[in-house]
Amino acid sequence: MAPLRSWFPIPKGSHFSLANLPFGIISRGSDPPNVAVAVGDHALDLKAFAAGNGFSELSVIQPHQAVFSHSSLNPFAALGRPIHGVVRKYIQSILMEDTPHPHVLQAKETLRTAVLVRLDKVKIHLPFQIGDYTDFYAGLNHAYNVGVLFRGPENALQPNYKHLPVGYHGRASSVVVSGTPIRRPCGQLLESPSAKSPIFSPCRKLDIELELGAFVCTRSQMGEPISIDHAEQYLFGVVLLNDWSARDLQAWEYVPLGPFNAKNFGTTISPWVVLADALEPFMTRGLENETELLPYLREKRADNVYDIKLRVDLKTESGSTSTISQTSSRNLLFSFPQMLAHHSVTGCPFNVGDLLGSGTISGLSPDERGSLLEQNENGRISIKLSGGEERRFLEDGDEVTITGVCGSDEDALVGFGECVGRIQPAVSFSFQ
Amino acid sequence: MAPLRSWFPIPKGSHFSLANLPFGIISRGSDPPNVAVAVGDHALDLKAFAAGNGFSELSVIQPHQAVFSHSSLNPFAALGRPIHGVVRKYIQSILMEDTPHPHVLQAKETLRTAVLVRLDKVKIHLPFQIGDYTDFYAGLNHAYNVGVLFRGPENALQPNYKHLPVGYHGRASSVVVSGTPIRRPCGQLLESPSAKSPIFSPCRKLDIELELGAFVCTRSQMGEPISIDHAEQYLFGVVLLNDWSARDLQAWEYVPLGPFNAKNFGTTISPWVVLADALEPFMTRGLENETELLPYLREKRADNVYDIKLRVDLKTESGSTSTISQTSSRNLLFSFPQMLAHHSVTGCPFNVGDLLGSGTISGLSPDERGSLLEQNENGRISIKLSGGEERRFLEDGDEVTITGVCGSDEDALVGFGECVGRIQPAVSFSFQ
Repeated sequence: MAPLRSWFPIPKGSHFSLANLPFGIISRGSDPPNVAVAVGDHALDLKAFAAGNGFSELSVIQPHQAVFSHSSLNPFAALGRPIHGVVRKYIQSILMEDTPHPHVLQAKETLRTAVLVRLDKVKIHLPFQIGDYTDFYAGLNHAYNVGVLFRGPENALQPNYKHLPVGYHGRASSVVVSGTPIRRPCGQLLESPSAKSPIFSPCRKLDIELELGAFVCTRSQMGEPISIDHAEQYLFGVVLLNDWSARDLQAWEYVPLGPFNAKNFGTTISPWVVLADALEPFMTRGLENETELLPYLREKRADNVYDIKLRVDLKTESGSTSTISQTSSRNLLFSFPQMLAHHSVTGCPFNVGDLLGSGTISGLSPDERGSLLEQNENGRISIKLSGGEERRFLEDGDEVTITGVCGSDEDALVGFGECVGRIQPAVSFSFQ
Repeated sequence: MAPLRSWFPIPKGSHFSLANLPFGIISRGSDPPNVAVAVGDHALDLKAFAAGNGFSELSVIQPHQAVFSHSSLNPFAALGRPIHGVVRKYIQSILMEDTPHPHVLQAKETLRTAVLVRLDKVKIHLPFQIGDYTDFYAGLNHAYNVGVLFRGPENALQPNYKHLPVGYHGRASSVVVSGTPIRRPCGQLLESPSAKSPIFSPCRKLDIELELGAFVCTRSQMGEPISIDHAEQYLFGVVLLNDWSARDLQAWEYVPLGPFNAKNFGTTISPWVVLADALEPFMTRGLENETELLPYLREKRADNVYDIKLRVDLKTESGSTSTISQTSSRNLLFSFPQMLAHHSVTGCPFNVGDLLGSGTISGLSPDERGSLLEQNENGRISIKLSGGEERRFLEDGDEVTITGVCGSDEDALVGFGECVGRIQPAVSFSFQ
């Protein structure tokens, strides 16, 4: 299929082609934030677009236009998947060459200038007001690699691993938008495996986790599980997610209730939420699971995960940048609908804006590993960077950028932009 | 000190004496919910009180009176501990015998009738819009008892247990107010310890956890730990909390990331939040910790936990009620300020309305155990109920009521009312 072309200039290779049109939250000057769509190097300000009668040809959205003035995507998301699809298609139709509605935007120079603003001229905010954040562990290769490091290859995966998407509740308050600095956390750690008592220290094993995140757009009632057949309709769209991790804090604290302070100092997400509809052409089969799943986890479709090309770059304070991982998001054993069906099977209620993390995504080969822990074999070996530097874990001033993109036609990419965070030095405590 | 007496009738033995005055959220008829204070058998409707010029003698609150019209305590809590204290003292002064301000309420019969409504005539709501919910594990005797069951007395407590308040992130969306029915969850469980594969089943080991909860009233910034010396000022007040638990789901799912579906189907809290100020006279020493704590957890005060008399009653469908546990909330190894200092030491940010659970509170003797798991030794023995019934875990139709009260003077009790939940049968799945 030939790519959709626009009368508006979209640079070749842009993540935000007409095939994409992801949603996010921007602000201009001192104005309050509102909803926008990314198009090439620009944001289409939907509050201004609505005010300029931009939705004149889409009657179904007219009673709901106040959602575009909101400072989060929650009210828009709550309108449901059919409406998201209609709005995306309408914006495509307004922006495409030979638009049937040239009078809406193309022919209106004043409105065009007012609503299409360069991305580097706006401030970009967290897209959702996040209710609960849950992080899964569905990256089979990551779980296996970590299991080998701590328990050996015979017992690498726990008995439950292939029967259900293992997950834990995360800290919603610490989810931040790309670009927010990440302060190195302090806490208790053991200086050596034989130490009897912990010391208080800045984290010495600061790590990344390459993940996807999915936002929930439909509320569910307590006591009412979401069936696997309906779960897709509860999912608004997808972001890149870096679940920063303090491995030394985690090793000491995690028995018996799981990761806690090792994870709650920051989780970074990319700002533009790519709609599930835009990702539909890039669905593929996930990893093979030879285990027979219980009926509540059986999906009708086999192509249940996304094939997103993922890359992790590390830029050090010296300015040199190295690509430290490249893999695909198909490296998951469970899909987001399966995660949601499992999570809600107890009757756990969901709200609009809840966030599900996929778990760390690693491929099979060493250069496809989505965490430093796997790459450095828990600190045993160094990772070589360009420019002669080396790393085991992250140092202060390191900047980590995750990118993700679907497709190969440079005029029709469906990408996520960047998910970036830079490490700041730890806080000084008065007693240190 | 002689108890404060009121010109308004407060029944002897009421949990809501003038020494208490807890805050909550009520609604009347079809009106939207708003803030109230419990007094004896009545709620003092603070929205109506403010509208009737009730705060005429308290100038400091006048610019903020809109907080009382809100459907959650969040805006009132955000005003900070000094304001909570002033408002509580003012309401005490309005309601006490020989009030210096009789013209505000005592002498105004119409206003009195309008603002003091019987508790059984109002609907009572969840007091806070909860941001994040964290559940700790600071009940030493509970952790020890459970450790003995699963690992024997030699290894009952993990090495980290006495060094830090162990905790995990919970599910905020599933926190509900007292009286909300709790549906028995379904999920994966092993039919026997030797089973290789799980079955799908309604939970067979449905349990309670007797806890306290504390609400956060002050926001903290990401990257900025809350010092132990300031942590008390971040805590609004306390509720009773029942952290319903599915022990069989938990046993199968919890490795390696901790409890998840076993906990996210419902957590019940009592509706009236007792202010930290009202509990101050009932502070006492917690359990002895022979471990030297790291400086960030060292409190200046030794009386850092509450001495609340706690009781758990179980009413079966036959109508008979048995008291199954009685203990004190002093059975904690760590205080709420210590939990907050630990939780934030990484820079984890807090919002107004965040909830901290204490962990299950058990005393030393068998009749002081705060969970059925401990009482029945993981299902090995039966608990005898009055009326000749027996229980291992909860059955459908069972109703569990937690009560808590401080003090012994029947005219000056500081109590929590009730935290009640009744078990509904599991959902039927089409494939079962």
